[in-house]
Amino acid sequence: RFRDEFLEMHPYDQSELFEELNETDRHLVYSYLSPEEMADVIEHIDEDRVGDVITEMNPTYAAEVLAEVATDDAVDILNDLDKDKVASYLTIMEEEAADEIKDLLHYEEKTAGSIMTTEYVVVTTDMDVKQAMRHLRQEAPDAETIYYIYVVNQDRKLVGVISLRDLIIADGAEIIEDLMSDRIVSVSVGDDQEQIAQMMRDYDFLALPVVDFQNHLLGIITVDDIMDVMEEEANDDYSKLAGVDVEAADLTPVQAAKNRLPWLIILMFLGLFTASIIGRFEETLDQVALLAIFLPLIAGMAGNTGTQALAVAVRGIATGDFQKQGLSKIVTRELTTGVIIGVTCGLSIWGIIYIWQGTLFLGFVVGLSIMTTLLVATVSGALVPLLMHYFKVDPAVASGPFITTINDIISVVIYFGLATMFMQFLI
Amino acid sequence: RFRDEFLEMHPYDQSELFEELNETDRHLVYSYLSPEEMADVIEHIDEDRVGDVITEMNPTYAAEVLAEVATDDAVDILNDLDKDKVASYLTIMEEEAADEIKDLLHYEEKTAGSIMTTEYVVVTTDMDVKQAMRHLRQEAPDAETIYYIYVVNQDRKLVGVISLRDLIIADGAEIIEDLMSDRIVSVSVGDDQEQIAQMMRDYDFLALPVVDFQNHLLGIITVDDIMDVMEEEANDDYSKLAGVDVEAADLTPVQAAKNRLPWLIILMFLGLFTASIIGRFEETLDQVALLAIFLPLIAGMAGNTGTQALAVAVRGIATGDFQKQGLSKIVTRELTTGVIIGVTCGLSIWGIIYIWQGTLFLGFVVGLSIMTTLLVATVSGALVPLLMHYFKVDPAVASGPFITTINDIISVVIYFGLATMFMQFLI
Ligand SMILES: [Mg+2]
Ligand SMILES: [Mg+2]
Ligand SMILES: [Mg+2]
Ligand SMILES: [Mg+2]
Ligand SMILES: [Mg+2]
Ligand SMILES: [Mg+2]
Ligand SMILES: [Mg+2]
Ligand SMILES: [Mg+2]
Ligand SMILES: [Mg+2]
Ligand SMILES: [Mg+2]
Ligand SMILES: [Mg+2]
Ligand SMILES: [Mg+2]
Ligand SMILES: [Mg+2]
Repeated sequence: RFRDEFLEMHPYDQSELFEELNETDRHLVYSYLSPEEMADVIEHIDEDRVGDVITEMNPTYAAEVLAEVATDDAVDILNDLDKDKVASYLTIMEEEAADEIKDLLHYEEKTAGSIMTTEYVVVTTDMDVKQAMRHLRQEAPDAETIYYIYVVNQDRKLVGVISLRDLIIADGAEIIEDLMSDRIVSVSVGDDQEQIAQMMRDYDFLALPVVDFQNHLLGIITVDDIMDVMEEEANDDYSKLAGVDVEAADLTPVQAAKNRLPWLIILMFLGLFTASIIGRFEETLDQVALLAIFLPLIAGMAGNTGTQALAVAVRGIATGDFQKQGLSKIVTRELTTGVIIGVTCGLSIWGIIYIWQGTLFLGFVVGLSIMTTLLVATVSGALVPLLMHYFKVDPAVASGPFITTINDIISVVIYFGLATMFMQFLI
Repeated sequence: RFRDEFLEMHPYDQSELFEELNETDRHLVYSYLSPEEMADVIEHIDEDRVGDVITEMNPTYAAEVLAEVATDDAVDILNDLDKDKVASYLTIMEEEAADEIKDLLHYEEKTAGSIMTTEYVVVTTDMDVKQAMRHLRQEAPDAETIYYIYVVNQDRKLVGVISLRDLIIADGAEIIEDLMSDRIVSVSVGDDQEQIAQMMRDYDFLALPVVDFQNHLLGIITVDDIMDVMEEEANDDYSKLAGVDVEAADLTPVQAAKNRLPWLIILMFLGLFTASIIGRFEETLDQVALLAIFLPLIAGMAGNTGTQALAVAVRGIATGDFQKQGLSKIVTRELTTGVIIGVTCGLSIWGIIYIWQGTLFLGFVVGLSIMTTLLVATVSGALVPLLMHYFKVDPAVASGPFITTINDIISVVIYFGLATMFMQFLI
């Protein structure tokens, strides 16, 4: 029987198989599986497709499935549907499940509230180990994790945590209050998901409790969802550096073009601006057309150095290393680094051009331009993200293409400015 | 008392505090803490510093600490020390711990073997739940996780897995063989860590068993270490796109310059090559110096499009999406995307330059160059990483600066080639 075979598989494998099916077969699956069984499949379906899957189900079945899905996942699914649909599912759904979902529906994206779930195990300080274990066994089938048990007092304030590891070693008569750890690491409901991921990674926890400003326990965040957060944040930073959303891999050409064009068009206008600046030096160019041949070299190196400094700064800010170091230390370091890089590359270029072209002054102008540009590009590459961070803008927004183009403009001005200054030696 | 206060803290907080101490105070800590207590601190110390910490300890104490550290972490620490030191620690250490460490010392970096640990809980098929729970309680203090229990047969071959969640719900007399899941998801000891992270994320496991080619259980990989792998791989891809190692945030200027110069010097030579190509078109340039003003625009747009296509391909390969789609589908899509992008930008530029400069033909040459360059840059940006993947080279090596510079060269050849062809209309 298909049903038995299917149910023996891991939910992720079920979802992979399910995603291969056509609509008729999917409807067969809905008729074979109970809402609870279908819920396990739904939890693992690709987030871009799961909305369509829910929508094609009979609404009563869909509501029953959503009630069985882990609350955090149900909320993610509903947040991608239209408001009318959400309201109708919540009306059909049994009240308790609907209430839990409603509580989580309105947290802001990328905060603790938006990734927490309410299916956790909670005990009170006065229980003994035996009572706690009995309670745990009851809750086990529905809880997201039973490996951390949270302890609250009468006001539902979080006062401790105990791991199942410690609980099963303990004597049955011991009181939870004496066993629990009261040095609780928790996060606030409005905390940013990237910081929470960082905490989970530092402390090696499997779950973190989420509290409100009065320390009431509101939910927990589990490590499986934190892995998804880490992937999302990494893709995000990578996308910004590349100037394209890389998460969208399976697109039609039109969609892919739409994904890439916005940046290209902005850059086109910035490029035209660069062109207009070079245009002002037309006279210089007319006199020494040879100047043009080093234009891509100078602009390219400025862009690359700027991207390097930017990338180091964006990651340094994300991991908190930069904040620890303080502004003056960073500026001094980037300035010195820029000088070292600039002098090294500038002198090499001067030498190479002298040997290659035999003209001392062309090499001098190119070398000096490279030196200055690399210095400016290094310092600005580090300062722009720091400034953005200071003004509470995500520094990763200062993406690669943007910094590259800014540095194009800077380098062109420096190069032609110097060339014009030293014109008498060049012709 | 400092000791009691310190031991109440979470090991991560202990390590943070420890890292702030000066050498004298660190030596005080060594005298206060037992090797077992110190081991918890060591497991959380920054991997760049932990080698120095171990080395400054009295060797006997260091060996005792290393014996208590989780095996996978001990191996990571030892792999960063010189061979002589490692041998001497292993000689002093108690034999059992030394043997476990030796078994893990020689796995290749970034494979399952290099991130697995041997502190797992294993039971045999014939045990009943009560026996298994008794065994579990014994192993609990030293196991990395007790939440998954692995089941082996007499040949130590992995035959099943059971979660503690299922175990505590089960009746004490039930036999493990009947309870366990025999659809085991496992990884091979030589598997790549990035693929393992992907699996852990898909299946939402807390640990994965590692087996040899005969399915003998060799170790387990836990989710806390997978979070570190994800961070490492993300930093790696980001670093390659930026052409700089971004993990090194707290460097001296000389170190920072060393970190950034290699790419810059390679790019300098590629840039000089670009310059020599433009040099061949000196005659064209002399006749229409105006051509130079659009050089940064064309090279910049080619570089940015190439980076976009590259980034999408690198991530697509990493997540397996690209492999699923097949070569012909990818090439068709990138080609079509390139045409859409190229035509859009090329036509706009033509129009803008016509309005701005009033010359129809200069705009035509620039527009046609942009169109061709964007097409070539898009297709090559996607194909280069695919080719590298095919030849088993990490596609992320085709980093941003490299693709950018290749596209500089391509764009210059196309631009001046077209300009030379249409010269009669330009002057
Ligand atoms: Mg359920
Ligand atoms: Mg959510
Ligand atoms: Mg960790
Ligand atoms: Mg969840
Ligand atoms: Mg999940
Ligand atoms: Mg971020
Ligand atoms: Mg220990
Ligand atoms: Mg290792
Ligand atoms: Mg890899
Ligand atoms: Mg997952
Ligand atoms: Mg470990
Ligand atoms: Mg660890
Ligand atoms: Mg990788």
